[in-house]
Amino acid sequence: MQNKKYSKLLRNSSTKTRIRYSETDQMGVVYHGNYAQFFELGRTEWLRSLGVTYKDMEISGIMLPVISLHCNFIKSALYDDVLTIKTFLKKKPLVKIEFDYEITNQNNELICTGNTVLAFMERKTMKPTRCPNYLLEGLGF
Amino acid sequence: MQNKKYSKLLRNSSTKTRIRYSETDQMGVVYHGNYAQFFELGRTEWLRSLGVTYKDMEISGIMLPVISLHCNFIKSALYDDVLTIKTFLKKKPLVKIEFDYEITNQNNELICTGNTVLAFMERKTMKPTRCPNYLLEGLGF
Amino acid sequence: MQNKKYSKLLRNSSTKTRIRYSETDQMGVVYHGNYAQFFELGRTEWLRSLGVTYKDMEISGIMLPVISLHCNFIKSALYDDVLTIKTFLKKKPLVKIEFDYEITNQNNELICTGNTVLAFMERKTMKPTRCPNYLLEGLGF
Amino acid sequence: MQNKKYSKLLRNSSTKTRIRYSETDQMGVVYHGNYAQFFELGRTEWLRSLGVTYKDMEISGIMLPVISLHCNFIKSALYDDVLTIKTFLKKKPLVKIEFDYEITNQNNELICTGNTVLAFMERKTMKPTRCPNYLLEGLGF
Repeated sequence: MQNKKYSKLLRNSSTKTRIRYSETDQMGVVYHGNYAQFFELGRTEWLRSLGVTYKDMEISGIMLPVISLHCNFIKSALYDDVLTIKTFLKKKPLVKIEFDYEITNQNNELICTGNTVLAFMERKTMKPTRCPNYLLEGLGF
Repeated sequence: MQNKKYSKLLRNSSTKTRIRYSETDQMGVVYHGNYAQFFELGRTEWLRSLGVTYKDMEISGIMLPVISLHCNFIKSALYDDVLTIKTFLKKKPLVKIEFDYEITNQNNELICTGNTVLAFMERKTMKPTRCPNYLLEGLGF
Repeated sequence: MQNKKYSKLLRNSSTKTRIRYSETDQMGVVYHGNYAQFFELGRTEWLRSLGVTYKDMEISGIMLPVISLHCNFIKSALYDDVLTIKTFLKKKPLVKIEFDYEITNQNNELICTGNTVLAFMERKTMKPTRCPNYLLEGLGF
Repeated sequence: MQNKKYSKLLRNSSTKTRIRYSETDQMGVVYHGNYAQFFELGRTEWLRSLGVTYKDMEISGIMLPVISLHCNFIKSALYDDVLTIKTFLKKKPLVKIEFDYEITNQNNELICTGNTVLAFMERKTMKPTRCPNYLLEGLGF
């Protein structure tokens, strides 16, 4: 039970990013297309919090292309804002892995929510594969 | 009737873009976050085909922030590929405008489908407003 | 002699790009870091005008990393501007290739000048190599 | 004298950034055009270390467009690398401000050096102006 609780915590994570000038557009806000990068930051740090890096996963021969991306833009983020990206593993990963995201600013206002589905692929063959065991174990599944 | 048919044609449009080196990532394919820019290219040229530019719309005091973005990634696009972006107006625009997108490569393979919803906003007040009449008329609504 | 003249023409080229919304920043102009991409567009189309694609060059085992980049920003470019990128081969390429660039807008105003030096590298060994003969011949050297 | 020494320290600063997947290209390294953003990160944090934010400077009516950019690329940076960006004020700012940069990776290898010149501009008139006094005082000039 204790273990399960601990794992639940591991299944979510939070990271921060400060908005760069280059990430704004002439509307004076963050260009909407940049949120895909923020979601990526979120799941990269989620993975790192489990003791795994996406870099090592790629080196070990597994790639994780994004197969779908959904974003809902609620409030604009501004230059120099410090955004908090919360990443939630949606369910046990099999051949795909799905995340929900919530992005808030330094005033705790909700900026954006989103979802991505990624597919585990063998680098050599570019064929679908299963989520590696070390990741499932790290997640307590 | 004739008019209606003509307008239907105007409600869709097609434009092309060649993939830049900067748009690839180390997976050797187009970074998924860049498709938001391709959809933007699509609707910009759709608008231009109606005799309106988004630039002039902004100058006239109307902004069109994106409020939702959906992408489904079907096949990778590669460096130097020439993508065709087809843009479809989904329904009569009121305070929002919705587009579907289909992106194919030079071999007519489907790369990506997507959808965006944008909101008409008054620039001064940043309040929602209706789709301008000249756009509705241009579309035959 | 005739041949030499012809080659001189081949040594320069010109291409166009329309400014995307994503390429602007909150100053209301093109983000200065994006000019590196425009120079890349310029030399890619320069190469294509010689009957060579950078894509094929990479496939054949030669890479061309940029080793220096200089930009002088003279006048701002704006959203929806159509920029003309002129690319000038500076001298006979040996293990390096050097280009000058001139970017003008649709009103023929000078926006930016620049220079890049790139190095020919063998993809396998990542060691410096000479400019391929087919390129030298194409240039009339 | 003590004051002068203290100010000298303030005239340089150091910040870190972790390379995002989106910042790589198909060469498997950081796309060279992204270093302009890293230099920007460097001078933004340099300014913040003086108790000033570029955001507030813009709100107060002063803009700082980049008028020249030079980069020398020495060694490739890779995905997930943690880069250290060192920013050096080159001389007393008058109507322009000049910085040198040095970027190293987590193994203390030199990745890139660079230089930017920026111009102080009045936002309303878009005319050149002098470096604000609070900045000169903060720097001990």
